[in-house]
Amino acid sequence: MSTKKILNVGIVGYGFMGRTHANAFRQVSQFFDLPFRPVLKAVCARNAANVAAFAEQWGYQSHETDWRKLVERPDIDLIDIATPNDTHAEIAIAAAKAGKMVMCEKPLGRSAEESARMVAAVEAAGVANMVWYNYRRVPAVTLAKHLVDSGRLGKIFHYRAKFLQDWTISRDLPQGGPGLWRLDASVAGSGVTGDLLAHCIDTAMWLNGGIKDVSAMTETFITERQHTLTGAVQPVSIDDASAFLAHFQNGSLATFEATRYARGHKALYTLEINGEHMSLAWDLHDLHRLQVFDHGDEGQLRGWRSVHITDGDHPYMKHWWVPGLQIGYEHTFIHQVADFLEGLSTGKPAAPTFRDGLATDHVTDAVLKSARSRRWENVAGG
Amino acid sequence: MSTKKILNVGIVGYGFMGRTHANAFRQVSQFFDLPFRPVLKAVCARNAANVAAFAEQWGYQSHETDWRKLVERPDIDLIDIATPNDTHAEIAIAAAKAGKMVMCEKPLGRSAEESARMVAAVEAAGVANMVWYNYRRVPAVTLAKHLVDSGRLGKIFHYRAKFLQDWTISRDLPQGGPGLWRLDASVAGSGVTGDLLAHCIDTAMWLNGGIKDVSAMTETFITERQHTLTGAVQPVSIDDASAFLAHFQNGSLATFEATRYARGHKALYTLEINGEHMSLAWDLHDLHRLQVFDHGDEGQLRGWRSVHITDGDHPYMKHWWVPGLQIGYEHTFIHQVADFLEGLSTGKPAAPTFRDGLATDHVTDAVLKSARSRRWENVAGG
Amino acid sequence: MSTKKILNVGIVGYGFMGRTHANAFRQVSQFFDLPFRPVLKAVCARNAANVAAFAEQWGYQSHETDWRKLVERPDIDLIDIATPNDTHAEIAIAAAKAGKMVMCEKPLGRSAEESARMVAAVEAAGVANMVWYNYRRVPAVTLAKHLVDSGRLGKIFHYRAKFLQDWTISRDLPQGGPGLWRLDASVAGSGVTGDLLAHCIDTAMWLNGGIKDVSAMTETFITERQHTLTGAVQPVSIDDASAFLAHFQNGSLATFEATRYARGHKALYTLEINGEHMSLAWDLHDLHRLQVFDHGDEGQLRGWRSVHITDGDHPYMKHWWVPGLQIGYEHTFIHQVADFLEGLSTGKPAAPTFRDGLATDHVTDAVLKSARSRRWENVAGG
Amino acid sequence: MSTKKILNVGIVGYGFMGRTHANAFRQVSQFFDLPFRPVLKAVCARNAANVAAFAEQWGYQSHETDWRKLVERPDIDLIDIATPNDTHAEIAIAAAKAGKMVMCEKPLGRSAEESARMVAAVEAAGVANMVWYNYRRVPAVTLAKHLVDSGRLGKIFHYRAKFLQDWTISRDLPQGGPGLWRLDASVAGSGVTGDLLAHCIDTAMWLNGGIKDVSAMTETFITERQHTLTGAVQPVSIDDASAFLAHFQNGSLATFEATRYARGHKALYTLEINGEHMSLAWDLHDLHRLQVFDHGDEGQLRGWRSVHITDGDHPYMKHWWVPGLQIGYEHTFIHQVADFLEGLSTGKPAAPTFRDGLATDHVTDAVLKSARSRRWENVAGG
Repeated sequence: MSTKKILNVGIVGYGFMGRTHANAFRQVSQFFDLPFRPVLKAVCARNAANVAAFAEQWGYQSHETDWRKLVERPDIDLIDIATPNDTHAEIAIAAAKAGKMVMCEKPLGRSAEESARMVAAVEAAGVANMVWYNYRRVPAVTLAKHLVDSGRLGKIFHYRAKFLQDWTISRDLPQGGPGLWRLDASVAGSGVTGDLLAHCIDTAMWLNGGIKDVSAMTETFITERQHTLTGAVQPVSIDDASAFLAHFQNGSLATFEATRYARGHKALYTLEINGEHMSLAWDLHDLHRLQVFDHGDEGQLRGWRSVHITDGDHPYMKHWWVPGLQIGYEHTFIHQVADFLEGLSTGKPAAPTFRDGLATDHVTDAVLKSARSRRWENVAGG
Repeated sequence: MSTKKILNVGIVGYGFMGRTHANAFRQVSQFFDLPFRPVLKAVCARNAANVAAFAEQWGYQSHETDWRKLVERPDIDLIDIATPNDTHAEIAIAAAKAGKMVMCEKPLGRSAEESARMVAAVEAAGVANMVWYNYRRVPAVTLAKHLVDSGRLGKIFHYRAKFLQDWTISRDLPQGGPGLWRLDASVAGSGVTGDLLAHCIDTAMWLNGGIKDVSAMTETFITERQHTLTGAVQPVSIDDASAFLAHFQNGSLATFEATRYARGHKALYTLEINGEHMSLAWDLHDLHRLQVFDHGDEGQLRGWRSVHITDGDHPYMKHWWVPGLQIGYEHTFIHQVADFLEGLSTGKPAAPTFRDGLATDHVTDAVLKSARSRRWENVAGG
Repeated sequence: MSTKKILNVGIVGYGFMGRTHANAFRQVSQFFDLPFRPVLKAVCARNAANVAAFAEQWGYQSHETDWRKLVERPDIDLIDIATPNDTHAEIAIAAAKAGKMVMCEKPLGRSAEESARMVAAVEAAGVANMVWYNYRRVPAVTLAKHLVDSGRLGKIFHYRAKFLQDWTISRDLPQGGPGLWRLDASVAGSGVTGDLLAHCIDTAMWLNGGIKDVSAMTETFITERQHTLTGAVQPVSIDDASAFLAHFQNGSLATFEATRYARGHKALYTLEINGEHMSLAWDLHDLHRLQVFDHGDEGQLRGWRSVHITDGDHPYMKHWWVPGLQIGYEHTFIHQVADFLEGLSTGKPAAPTFRDGLATDHVTDAVLKSARSRRWENVAGG
Repeated sequence: MSTKKILNVGIVGYGFMGRTHANAFRQVSQFFDLPFRPVLKAVCARNAANVAAFAEQWGYQSHETDWRKLVERPDIDLIDIATPNDTHAEIAIAAAKAGKMVMCEKPLGRSAEESARMVAAVEAAGVANMVWYNYRRVPAVTLAKHLVDSGRLGKIFHYRAKFLQDWTISRDLPQGGPGLWRLDASVAGSGVTGDLLAHCIDTAMWLNGGIKDVSAMTETFITERQHTLTGAVQPVSIDDASAFLAHFQNGSLATFEATRYARGHKALYTLEINGEHMSLAWDLHDLHRLQVFDHGDEGQLRGWRSVHITDGDHPYMKHWWVPGLQIGYEHTFIHQVADFLEGLSTGKPAAPTFRDGLATDHVTDAVLKSARSRRWENVAGG
C-alpha cells in the first residue's frame, strides 16, 4: 500500500517542452523517494488526433483540446504550461484563479509587465508556482551554487555567460508557425534575449545576486524571411543576437551574450564566475563537468580541475547510477519536479517561483531598452 | 486503440543493473515507435519486502521471490537476467527451456564453457536472446561502427582500449556479499577481466572483427580482504588488473587494459581505432562526443574533430531532444531494448546475441590462460 | 663569405620585453634565411653595473646608460624601445629624427594623441617602423588571418576576445616603481585597457577590420595601494578590469574583456570569430593550437577541429622543428623580426606599423571615454 | 670581465638533432647563470660546402669534414654526437679515448652490446658523458619526477606510455639515405623500438624505477619499400610498431606502445602514472601542461587538474618568461645543457649518463627478443 499522495498533472502542450515536462513527471517517482507521486492525468493540445496519439504513447489518462476545460477540471491539481510564450499569461492566470498549482515554461511572460500579472495571480490565489529554468538543476550548476553560497569563492569580481547557437544562419529558414514561433516576436516576446539570455540571467542571479544596470546591443542579421504559413516575405521582428555589460549589486562586473549566428555551437551555454579565492566554470555541451580553480591549492600544483559530477555526494547524483556514468539534459527537469514536490511537502517553495521569473524579465526588459537607447539602463528592482 | 503488441517482461534482480534494465523497458515506448510495447509484468528477488517495495516504486504489475516460478509463469514473454554472474546460466537455460525470450546482463557466463551451454539452450529452444553489452548503443560508438563498416578508415593498423577505475584501492574495502560480489571470483568468474575487459572486447570485436591471439598479464594488488558477511580475512580470488596485447584477424595490433587501481578514473572506458585514412576515439566519461581525425581534410586544417553527437542525423538521436543537448548512460539500455524489439518484428535479431557474448568469453578465457602460462594463447574460434 | 647585410640594433631596456626583443634579434638568423643579419650592437639602461652585466650575458657589443647617446650613435641602424610606456614617444621621436629605424613595444603611446605624434615623426623621417604586437605572429593566429582573408569564413557575425589574468588580486601588492609601473597610470597610460585589451584590439582589427563604436565599462577593484618606492598608500590610478561591446565596420558584433582579477587565469588571451561558413578560436595558454569549425564538413562528422599548428605548411613552422613539436611564446618575437627584415628588403613594410598601432590607440581611447560617459562612443577614424 | 669558464664544443652532425643541440649550447648562457659558457667551436659533417654554410649561419668558429680530426683537436673540450645511430659508438669511443667529454644523441648504441662498449670507454677515460633523452627536461615531466620522488603518489600501481606517429603510412615513402635512415635497421638498430619506445622507457625508469620483464609484439606493416638512393625495392628491415607489457621492480604494471601508423598523431608521446594517492599524466602535444589528480582533495571537488607549467616555481621556468607564457620543444635541450654544465661544476654528474642510456637499451633489447620468442623475457640487470 503506497502512502504517497497522488498529484494529478495536466500539461498544456506536447512539443519539445511538453515532452521534457511529461518525462519529468513520469520519471521522478522511480528515482526520488517523495511524499507526492505525480500522475499524467491529462494533456491538452488543439489537434484532436495528435493529442490522442500523444496521450496514448506517453500514458496520459486523458486528453483535451481546450486548455480552458483542462483548467476547470476538478481532477487536476497542477497545470503545467508548455506552450508558446504568448499563451503563458492567459493560461497561468486562469489556472491560478481555478486554484491550481502552476508550473510554466520559461520565460514567464513576454515582458515584465505580462509576468507581473502572472505573479499577482498566483500570489493572490496562494497556489504553488514555478518557472522551468531547468539549468539550475544541472548537478554541476547546483554544486556551483553550493560553493558560492558557502562563501568559499570570497569576493566576486567577474561573471560571464554566453549562450551560442547557429541554427538560424540560413536565409532559407522561414519564420513563424509551429516549431518556428521563436522567430516571431509577437509570439515569443523577443528573440535570443528572452529565449537564451533569460536562461543565462536566471542562473546568474541565482548564483551571484541581483543585477543593477546594463548596457546592451542587439542585432537582426537577416531582416526578412518567408513566413511558414503564409509564404509571404516579412520583416524579421526578433533580435538574432544580444549582448550586454552589467554590474551586479555585489560590485562584480559581467558580460553576457547570446546569438543564433555563432557557427559551430549548437547550444553552448557557458558560465564562469571569478572569486578572490576560487573560480568556477561550466559548459552545457559537457554538462556533467564542473571546472574548479582553487587558489588555496599549493602553488606548483594549482590548475583548473575538471570535476566529473557523477559521484554520490554530488547534488542529485545519488539518485542515479554509479560514479563515472553521466546523466543528460532531461534529468534537469526531473530534478526540478523532485524539488517542487519536496517544496510542497516541506512548505518551503522551490525556486524559481514566478516572482523569481519576473526578476529575470526585468533584466531582459532593461537589455532590450538599453539596446534601443544606446545607454546604460537600470534594472527595475535591481 | 493501440495496435502495438504487448511484451510482458519479467526481470530477475533489482540492483544497479535491475534498475537500468527496468528503466529501459519503461522508457522505450515514449521515445521509439515500435510494434511491441514492453510491460513491466513482474520483478523477482529473494527478499519479499524489498521486492514488493521496488515493484511498487517502479510500477511492476507483480513480484516474485523465486525465479523458477517467474520462469514458469505463462503471462511472461521475456525473462531478463540482472543478477550476479553465477546465476546467469541456470536462469537463462531454464527460461529458454520454458520457451521464453532471454536477455542477460554481461558477461554471459563465468567462463566460455558456461556460456556455451547457455548458447546451446537458447538456440535449441529457438528463442530470441541478447546480452546487455550496452556500450554498443552509445550513439558515438554506434556512429564509429557505421564509419568503420563504410570502409572509410581504410586498412586498420591499431586498436586500443582501456577501462580504468579506482574504487577498490582501499585495503579496508571488504569483499563478497551483496554489492561486492564482483570481488568474489566464485560468483563473478573473474575480476576486471570479465567485468571491464569484457566490455572492451565486445566493442572491439564488433568494430574490428575477431581476435586471433593474446599475451596477457593479471595482478592482484591486495591479496587479502575481510569478507562482508563472515568478517573473516580471506585471500582475494579476483584479478585487480588485467592487460593484454592482441592481434586481430585483420592484421591490426591491439593493447587492452583494465584495472580498479587507476587513481583518478571512475569509469574511464576509452577506445581508439587507427585506420589508414581515418582514426576514431571515444571516452565513456564524455560519452556524447566522438573524436574523428580525417586524413582527407586539407593539410593545414587537419585536426581531431570533437563531434558532439547530439544531432538528429546521429544514431538514435532523433528520438531524443534537440542538437546540443546530451543524453546519458541509461539511454544506451533504452536503445538496446529498442533494437531488440525491432529485431523481433523484422526477424533480424539484434546483436549481441548469446553467441556473440560467447565469442567475448573465448577471449577473456584466453586472457586468463595467457596470464597463467606467460605465453601467447590463441583465442578459441578466433 | 656572407652576403648578408648587417643591421645594427640598439635596444633601450632590458626587462621582460628587453629580453624578448634581444632574443628575437639574436635568434632570427639561425632559423630564417634573410638578406639582413641583425647584430646586438648596444643595450641601454640607466643602471651602469646592471646594463654592463646584461650586455655581457647577452653578447651585446656595447652598452649605454643614456638613450639620447644611443640614438645619436652613427653605428646604430635601428632603435628598439623596450621601456615603460611613458618613454616611448620621446625616444621614438628622437630616434626618427636621427634617421633610425624604430621598433616600439606596445602600446605605442599612452594615448592616441601621443601615438599620433610618434606616427608623424616616423613618417616625416621616412624610417621603417613597427609596433611589437607580437601575437599576430603566433602561427595559429597567422593561419587564422590567412583563412579570414581567403574569404572562407563568409560573412562575419561575431568576434569575441578576452585577456584574463589574476596577478593583482592581493591587496598587499604594491604599485609603481620597477616591475610594477603597469599599475601606475601616469607611466602606463591606463591599466588593462592599454596593456591587455590593446593586444586583443590589434589582433581583432587585423583579422576583422575597423571598429566603429564601443560601449565600455571599467573598474578599479582595489582603490588604494602602497607605493613600491615611497611606501605611501595612494589611490590606484589604473583600471583593473575593462570590458566593451563593439560594432565592427563589417557589421559584426563583438565583446571584449580584460582583467587582472580573473582567478585561475595567468594570461588567458582567447579569441573567436564566427563566420557564416567557418568559425575559428584560439587561446594563448595553448598557443600552438587553432580550433577550426568548418560547416562544409559533412553533417554527421562536423566538429571543432583541434589543429596542432606544428606542420611545415603552417605559417613560420617550416623554420623550426618537425610536426608535433611545439614552439612557444618567444618565437612570436622572432617571427616579427623576420617579417620586419623581409619588409626592409622587399620594400613592403611589415605590419603593424606605428600607424596601425595608432588605430588601436583610437579604440582604447574610445573605450576609456565610453567608460566615463556611460554611452556608446564612436572610434576616431573607425 | 667574465668569470665564466669557456667550454669549447664540437658537434658532429647538422641535421634535425644537430640544430637542436647547437641551439641549446648557443642559448643556455643567456637564460641560465652557470660557471661554464659553451662556445660553438666547430661543426663537422661530410659535405664541405654544406657544413661551411651551416657553420656561418649558426656562428660556429670553424668546421670540419672528418670527425676523426675533430676528435683530435686540442681546442675542443666536448664532442657532441648528432649523427645517425650507426656512428654513435665509434665516435664516442674515439672521443673518450681522446679525453673529451661526450654527449650523444639517443639511443646510445644500436644494441645493448654496442652501448656497453661506449659505457666502458667513457668510464675508463673518466670523462663526463650524457645521452640526449631530452624529455626528462620538459618542465612538466621534471615536476612529475619531483612529485614521484617526494613519495606523494604512494604505492605505484600502473604506468602507461605511448609514442604515436603517422608519418610512414604511405607506401610511396622510400627508405634509407639522408633523412630516412630511421627506416633502415642497419643504421638505426631497430624501428620505433629504439627511436620512440626508447624515449618512453628512459622517462619511465627515471620516474618509476627498473623494469623486470616484458612481453612484446612488433609488426612491419609495409614490408617492402624503394630505397632512396638506389631506387631498388627492398625488404623493410625495421619494426613499424612495437608494444609491450611489463612489470616494474616496484610491483607496478605497465603498457607501452609506439608506432608510426597511428593516423592523426604527429608525435603523441603520452605517459601516465597511477599511485595510491595521486596520479599524473602528460602529453608531448601540449608539453607545457601536467595533469594531476590528488585523491587528498575533498571528495566533491576532486578532479584532474590541468596545471599550466609556466610559473616561476615550476622546474626551469624562472629562467624564462612570465606565468602563462609557454616554452616549447627546443627548451628541453637547453635545460639539458644547463644541467650538464651544473653537473660539471658540482661534480655530481647530470643524468642520463651513458650508463643510464645502457639501461634503456637493455629494455629495448628484451622487447625485440620477446617479440621474436613470443614469451616474457627478463631485462638484463632489471
